[in-house]
Amino acid sequence: MSDVFNHPWLCGLFGDPEVQALWSPTEQIAHYTAFEVALSHALEDVGRVPQGHGAAAAATLEASIIDPASLAGDVARDGIPIPALVRRWRAADPAHKDAIHAGATSQDVMDTALALTLQAVSDLLTRRLRNLDASLWDLDARFGDRLLMGRTRMQAALWIQIADRLRSWRVPLAAHADRLDAARAGVERLQLGGAVGTRHSFGDQGQAIANTMAARLRLSAPDHAWHNERGGIVHYAACLAGLSGALGKMGQDIVLMAQQGLDDIRIAGGGGSSAMPHKSNPVLAELLVTLARLNAGSLSGMHHALIHEQERSGAAWMLEWALLPQMTLATGRAITAAHALCDGIEDMGAA
Amino acid sequence: MSDVFNHPWLCGLFGDPEVQALWSPTEQIAHYTAFEVALSHALEDVGRVPQGHGAAAAATLEASIIDPASLAGDVARDGIPIPALVRRWRAADPAHKDAIHAGATSQDVMDTALALTLQAVSDLLTRRLRNLDASLWDLDARFGDRLLMGRTRMQAALWIQIADRLRSWRVPLAAHADRLDAARAGVERLQLGGAVGTRHSFGDQGQAIANTMAARLRLSAPDHAWHNERGGIVHYAACLAGLSGALGKMGQDIVLMAQQGLDDIRIAGGGGSSAMPHKSNPVLAELLVTLARLNAGSLSGMHHALIHEQERSGAAWMLEWALLPQMTLATGRAITAAHALCDGIEDMGAA
Amino acid sequence: MSDVFNHPWLCGLFGDPEVQALWSPTEQIAHYTAFEVALSHALEDVGRVPQGHGAAAAATLEASIIDPASLAGDVARDGIPIPALVRRWRAADPAHKDAIHAGATSQDVMDTALALTLQAVSDLLTRRLRNLDASLWDLDARFGDRLLMGRTRMQAALWIQIADRLRSWRVPLAAHADRLDAARAGVERLQLGGAVGTRHSFGDQGQAIANTMAARLRLSAPDHAWHNERGGIVHYAACLAGLSGALGKMGQDIVLMAQQGLDDIRIAGGGGSSAMPHKSNPVLAELLVTLARLNAGSLSGMHHALIHEQERSGAAWMLEWALLPQMTLATGRAITAAHALCDGIEDMGAA
Amino acid sequence: MSDVFNHPWLCGLFGDPEVQALWSPTEQIAHYTAFEVALSHALEDVGRVPQGHGAAAAATLEASIIDPASLAGDVARDGIPIPALVRRWRAADPAHKDAIHAGATSQDVMDTALALTLQAVSDLLTRRLRNLDASLWDLDARFGDRLLMGRTRMQAALWIQIADRLRSWRVPLAAHADRLDAARAGVERLQLGGAVGTRHSFGDQGQAIANTMAARLRLSAPDHAWHNERGGIVHYAACLAGLSGALGKMGQDIVLMAQQGLDDIRIAGGGGSSAMPHKSNPVLAELLVTLARLNAGSLSGMHHALIHEQERSGAAWMLEWALLPQMTLATGRAITAAHALCDGIEDMGAA
Repeated sequence: MSDVFNHPWLCGLFGDPEVQALWSPTEQIAHYTAFEVALSHALEDVGRVPQGHGAAAAATLEASIIDPASLAGDVARDGIPIPALVRRWRAADPAHKDAIHAGATSQDVMDTALALTLQAVSDLLTRRLRNLDASLWDLDARFGDRLLMGRTRMQAALWIQIADRLRSWRVPLAAHADRLDAARAGVERLQLGGAVGTRHSFGDQGQAIANTMAARLRLSAPDHAWHNERGGIVHYAACLAGLSGALGKMGQDIVLMAQQGLDDIRIAGGGGSSAMPHKSNPVLAELLVTLARLNAGSLSGMHHALIHEQERSGAAWMLEWALLPQMTLATGRAITAAHALCDGIEDMGAA
Repeated sequence: MSDVFNHPWLCGLFGDPEVQALWSPTEQIAHYTAFEVALSHALEDVGRVPQGHGAAAAATLEASIIDPASLAGDVARDGIPIPALVRRWRAADPAHKDAIHAGATSQDVMDTALALTLQAVSDLLTRRLRNLDASLWDLDARFGDRLLMGRTRMQAALWIQIADRLRSWRVPLAAHADRLDAARAGVERLQLGGAVGTRHSFGDQGQAIANTMAARLRLSAPDHAWHNERGGIVHYAACLAGLSGALGKMGQDIVLMAQQGLDDIRIAGGGGSSAMPHKSNPVLAELLVTLARLNAGSLSGMHHALIHEQERSGAAWMLEWALLPQMTLATGRAITAAHALCDGIEDMGAA
Repeated sequence: MSDVFNHPWLCGLFGDPEVQALWSPTEQIAHYTAFEVALSHALEDVGRVPQGHGAAAAATLEASIIDPASLAGDVARDGIPIPALVRRWRAADPAHKDAIHAGATSQDVMDTALALTLQAVSDLLTRRLRNLDASLWDLDARFGDRLLMGRTRMQAALWIQIADRLRSWRVPLAAHADRLDAARAGVERLQLGGAVGTRHSFGDQGQAIANTMAARLRLSAPDHAWHNERGGIVHYAACLAGLSGALGKMGQDIVLMAQQGLDDIRIAGGGGSSAMPHKSNPVLAELLVTLARLNAGSLSGMHHALIHEQERSGAAWMLEWALLPQMTLATGRAITAAHALCDGIEDMGAA
Repeated sequence: MSDVFNHPWLCGLFGDPEVQALWSPTEQIAHYTAFEVALSHALEDVGRVPQGHGAAAAATLEASIIDPASLAGDVARDGIPIPALVRRWRAADPAHKDAIHAGATSQDVMDTALALTLQAVSDLLTRRLRNLDASLWDLDARFGDRLLMGRTRMQAALWIQIADRLRSWRVPLAAHADRLDAARAGVERLQLGGAVGTRHSFGDQGQAIANTMAARLRLSAPDHAWHNERGGIVHYAACLAGLSGALGKMGQDIVLMAQQGLDDIRIAGGGGSSAMPHKSNPVLAELLVTLARLNAGSLSGMHHALIHEQERSGAAWMLEWALLPQMTLATGRAITAAHALCDGIEDMGAA
């Protein structure tokens, strides 16, 4: 039970294989390589290495095969996998090592890989949110005009329509989706700064190199490194927590609607019990609450990581590593769980 | 020491009298009254009450004098001050009570007051951020080309310029200011929904009433109530925590720069010690770290409050009350402390 | 609404005047004075100041009258009120200033005051918990054998007795009360360390002075200062959050029981609504949930404050100031609210 | 990078193979089985099943081989693996199925497994803490009388000894270790309650069965189920966060000591940089800070999970699953990292 998102059986409940795949070791190494390939080409393009060296280095990089587990020992020492990778890449092509990682630093590679991963995560979440929105509209079409006892402070208040309740799920979700979309620009950025973030090794060609690399990687090229400026990442995380929070409200509402005595909803395929075979537990609705609270906590840690000392904080950066991937998994899973939950709704409200 | 922001002596360190004033009981009652006045007029404008009733009710409302402390007993029973206020207002003008609070609910009043308060908070913070930015540019003009040992993972790395360090304080601050600005639209909204958020008492005139009221209150008029859609508020809170987080990084950097042995900065007016008169403590820089961590924690609670059950959650709503005002105070104070800190900088970097 | 615990009308709901009084400026200054008086006497007792100086200084200290608000400016500069107080005290009795604050530091005074405050808080909470326990047993006597539909995952499961539900409120509360009691030893300790926590100014008399002072203050005398060892404080905070968390479970259960459709409880004196006069809102039960979540968040900040740099961290220490008093207020109020809630229960379960 | 504790290369830094093993799927299934075996025997012991049925069922259970991954589909539906396991176990021995899981519920199995896991975790952490303490005393022996500039509020204050600084790492660690030890009784408890926690299926033999089972499992046998009484678990989690917090203070101090300009420590084997081969980064010390902040955040979530609705909350329980194992991993790794860090210290303080 050490990682609910990636556990032999709990993954059945918490797992999001598609988001998980975007964080896979293979994918990460592919992103690291893509950064280095882009840099090698850029170094040649601007003339910082002899003609042909960039392309040759890029070929070497693309041909390299890395066994993820082989890096564990290096990470134990260096805290990061890049120094060892660079050593291997350079050793594989000593003749063109001037075009490998020159002027860059580990964080450039890892943050750019993060940007690429979050780009793919955002594409995926956006597609899913569109489908979930359609699913909620579908419920509206089926049950929207049914009556439901509106409840305030958990007390029966006045009759409303199912459409009213659905709107309180759908509208915030759309708003958070818009916020996530707006937050993408703050994360889908090339990271390029070198040892202390000043691009000092590139002379006056830093921005030219950044522009070339960014175009190849389909990222934007900010005019300086953002090693220690984590606001864009943290803001993105807040948007994730906003999404899972909105879904937590939906989940909590469904759990409450499913209570015997209220009977405002009927859901197919609820969870079974080892002691009470007659029960049908609203497991997915509960899961939405859990994931919302999990992200609410993780977001706090992300904000603590804004206190990023000097040119690079090891401690704050590592805190991001531990929290952000899980936030994407929790958010991704919340969306698929919400969708499955909607699809399982057989009845809502009073006829 | 029960509330550091509003304590007879700790307010000297933590206090932000300007933000505090925006949350004062007087100001809150003024906002409550403004909501009711706008509603009274709107009810007359659309013809839901006889000609003259709205204006008369509004006059009564505006003339009413409320002793804040007199509401404590009512709040002990109702959990909110509005039911008691409405009883008093109606009792003060029985002839026009049809034009007082008709069709509205307590949350409409309190959330609209919140919108008005946050509007004023945002104006204030925006002005301050502009001044702080100028102050940081001024430091850049004075010391930008000085050298500073760049530090990564707290280890000496390579020389950078003071301008590089200043940029890592200034750029994120500007980005968070932009985010706050973008988040305003999500909070500066009239709340109008009635008992269960459906505007059911207004017939088909709900939106017309909302539009009229919003224009008078200089807020936007969403097409439905957002009683249980708290995403806009929570997103605003995340922007506050982003701001204080960016200032926390600045504070942490300054504390580190001020260490004897590094001596990267000299600040006037540091705090005295009862045991070591020779010391000059970087109290304001430390304060920035404290406020950042405080907001990082509060933001988590705000996200938990997204799980807002059904048409209105008492528990989640009250959690907002306990957290959001303090977040504005922490953020407001972080900006003034950062500004004072900048102004006290006498020297930075190596000549 | 800037501080819900101490607000002209929200105090009706959130306020705990008894706990608030324990944190009052007057009480804090009394504690600061008590520390200094104990130190003055101790210095004389062990012979570090001439005979009579300690008693004279103590008399001066006890006669001093401090206007709390007059310290705000000092705190703005020093970050703490003690340096200014010491200056005033010494100025009031120059002839015996050798016996005022000699060898101590501000943190000694403030942490000892904290110990005294938490001692009183613990006494109060303990008394209240005993009464609440009696109140829960009383409910057991009245309704314990009534039937209640047991609910798991919010679904109707099997009939249980009210006694079963009550036990799940009472037993954890008693366990947390025991933990709080055990945690007291870790906070009710004299703080005495001097500038860097080593008691260096006291020669070999540090422990003798500490023992004398502790006896007078009815605290324990640890064998070294705990300036930067915050585990005892943080553990105490965890016990507070445990208590409010257990009460949050009780509150959540009551809110759920009070739902129309379940009707497992009838409570007198629920909150009124401005829109629906027929409603009776379970405001106090909701409040228990709010306070539990508030403390859950604050506790996280307290644990961040364990990372207390070197001999004294300003930033981490200030974070404690901002969080711990509120945690005691939230916990104190949770107990009184729970008690009032119990007293208002008119019926539970099915006859 | 989706789970830093169990990642092909980040495990080199964050991984704790020994703690990880205690949470392995194999180990969990072994604990589930041990619970069922104990129950089968106990049912026979007290005569609730015919002579021989308990032993036969136990033999069947012990012979069963479960492929962890095969349970994912069941968990997707039921939210928990136990219903599927029970179906398989009963199908494997229809003749004695009366002695399999009879009277128990899934949570009984899973919470008892948790108790067994935490028992092993506590044993391991305790051993490690003893060794770390020895290591800190060893540093005291080697460097304790060296001088170090004491720092308060990060400013140079007065000279202290390395022994003073070491004490501020060692003493809190020992205190937290004692608290962890005291907290064990609250978690190492058999869980046995049945469907709604009342042991209703066992007639008046519930406690006899519990006693028998607990003796076999080397756990205590509380006099009622603690399905919804999570205080013991959460208190244990607070002790974990206390430990990692104390180590975070040590890590932060070491990072600060290692700064060029202070040079209070020299550590072997610091991390390499891809851009600056001359650097030696205090990666393990930074890691301690990261792990402390991670646990500080997770603890908040654990306290939110105290709000455990009615007889069993799915949402709150699942939140525990997501947080507690990671807290043990973070704490376990913090101890090994601290130990490795101590072992790598080559010099401290001024000669």
